[in-house]
Amino acid sequence: MKRVKVSNNVIRRLPRYLRKLDELQENGINRISSFELGQQLGLTPSQIRQDFSCFGEFGQQGYGYNVAGLREQIASILGMDRGYKAVLIGVGNIGHALMDNFSFSDCGVQLAAAFDIKESLIGTEFKGVPILAWDQIEDYLKNNEVAIAVLCVPKTAAITATDVLTRNGIEAIWNFTNIELTEPNSPIIVENVHFSDSLLSLSYFVSERMDEHAGQTAKTDK
Amino acid sequence: MKRVKVSNNVIRRLPRYLRKLDELQENGINRISSFELGQQLGLTPSQIRQDFSCFGEFGQQGYGYNVAGLREQIASILGMDRGYKAVLIGVGNIGHALMDNFSFSDCGVQLAAAFDIKESLIGTEFKGVPILAWDQIEDYLKNNEVAIAVLCVPKTAAITATDVLTRNGIEAIWNFTNIELTEPNSPIIVENVHFSDSLLSLSYFVSERMDEHAGQTAKTDK
Repeated sequence: MKRVKVSNNVIRRLPRYLRKLDELQENGINRISSFELGQQLGLTPSQIRQDFSCFGEFGQQGYGYNVAGLREQIASILGMDRGYKAVLIGVGNIGHALMDNFSFSDCGVQLAAAFDIKESLIGTEFKGVPILAWDQIEDYLKNNEVAIAVLCVPKTAAITATDVLTRNGIEAIWNFTNIELTEPNSPIIVENVHFSDSLLSLSYFVSERMDEHAGQTAKTDK
Repeated sequence: MKRVKVSNNVIRRLPRYLRKLDELQENGINRISSFELGQQLGLTPSQIRQDFSCFGEFGQQGYGYNVAGLREQIASILGMDRGYKAVLIGVGNIGHALMDNFSFSDCGVQLAAAFDIKESLIGTEFKGVPILAWDQIEDYLKNNEVAIAVLCVPKTAAITATDVLTRNGIEAIWNFTNIELTEPNSPIIVENVHFSDSLLSLSYFVSERMDEHAGQTAKTDK
């Protein structure tokens, strides 16, 4: 695929578009204007047209977007049709919750194996995914083409596990450890899932609103 | 607190600053320049100075930032010192994982109670948090000042649960249901945790890199 450099904000909106288009398809809607799509997503129509223009021409002036076609193109831009394989490292609570509830395949990713150090887990299978011994990881990565490691180990093991993974060819880490793995100029791609960042942003917005209310009350009191 | 309107990007960086400052404190570092902080976070010094200038003057020209002081101010901006109470709705895998592993108190939030419909859970306690019957939620919210609801119910229950919560005064939802709850012009504050968005962004970056490699190989081959 020919690629132009696209801003991070646009990339971050693509999965949202995808979810919305899936929802539209489920509701039997085949065509949508940028105006209507914008309304449903809280974006301006021009914002939407500009986002899509980064990847070529998707809509037809006056006819709107073909929902199925647009969905397919965005999925392809996101790499969902490439059949990436993932391994999950650390089958604790969060690792287990992901294996149980999260549909990797809905993202076009195949969760091929999980790894842990816990004897009672090793050799078992969960929802069709084998749980292997962590000390088999090097062999496994040599013999399987794995694109993504899902890192769910305890904080204390995060750095060591990352070293082992990257030395064995892993270039992308989906990081649930709450340890910042992104070094400037690092060759690995890290997507950090920091629950606390998300809750703290929410806390910010709550505080902002409360202060606004308080401000209004103060004004009314005068 | 007097508030100026701050861009979403700045707000999203505040928790990252906080994590970095915590790490510096743990390592006994008391003072840091915007240059050094920028290097460690992959941001430019001017970006950092600009971010902080939204909230007033934090650093001293030529002396850098006092780590503990800056940490405290950012924590306060994020509302971490306001003692927000949260309730968690739905003690399934993800709800359970949050109760087990996620430190609400590290974000200044008190997880006061959890709610479920499952008989075997109701009346029990997990890590000091009581699990109550979902049909007690109205009473609970009447008698307790709750700022945030952590929504971990199955997809199919997301909308109904949200209706009940907002009708009973909840204004902020930390949403783990993978259902987009944010309506344009909605009065509730929603922070969506979409695991799939995060994985799809990672998939995008992996694809981008692979295409770059492929492009380079193609060039070299000529």
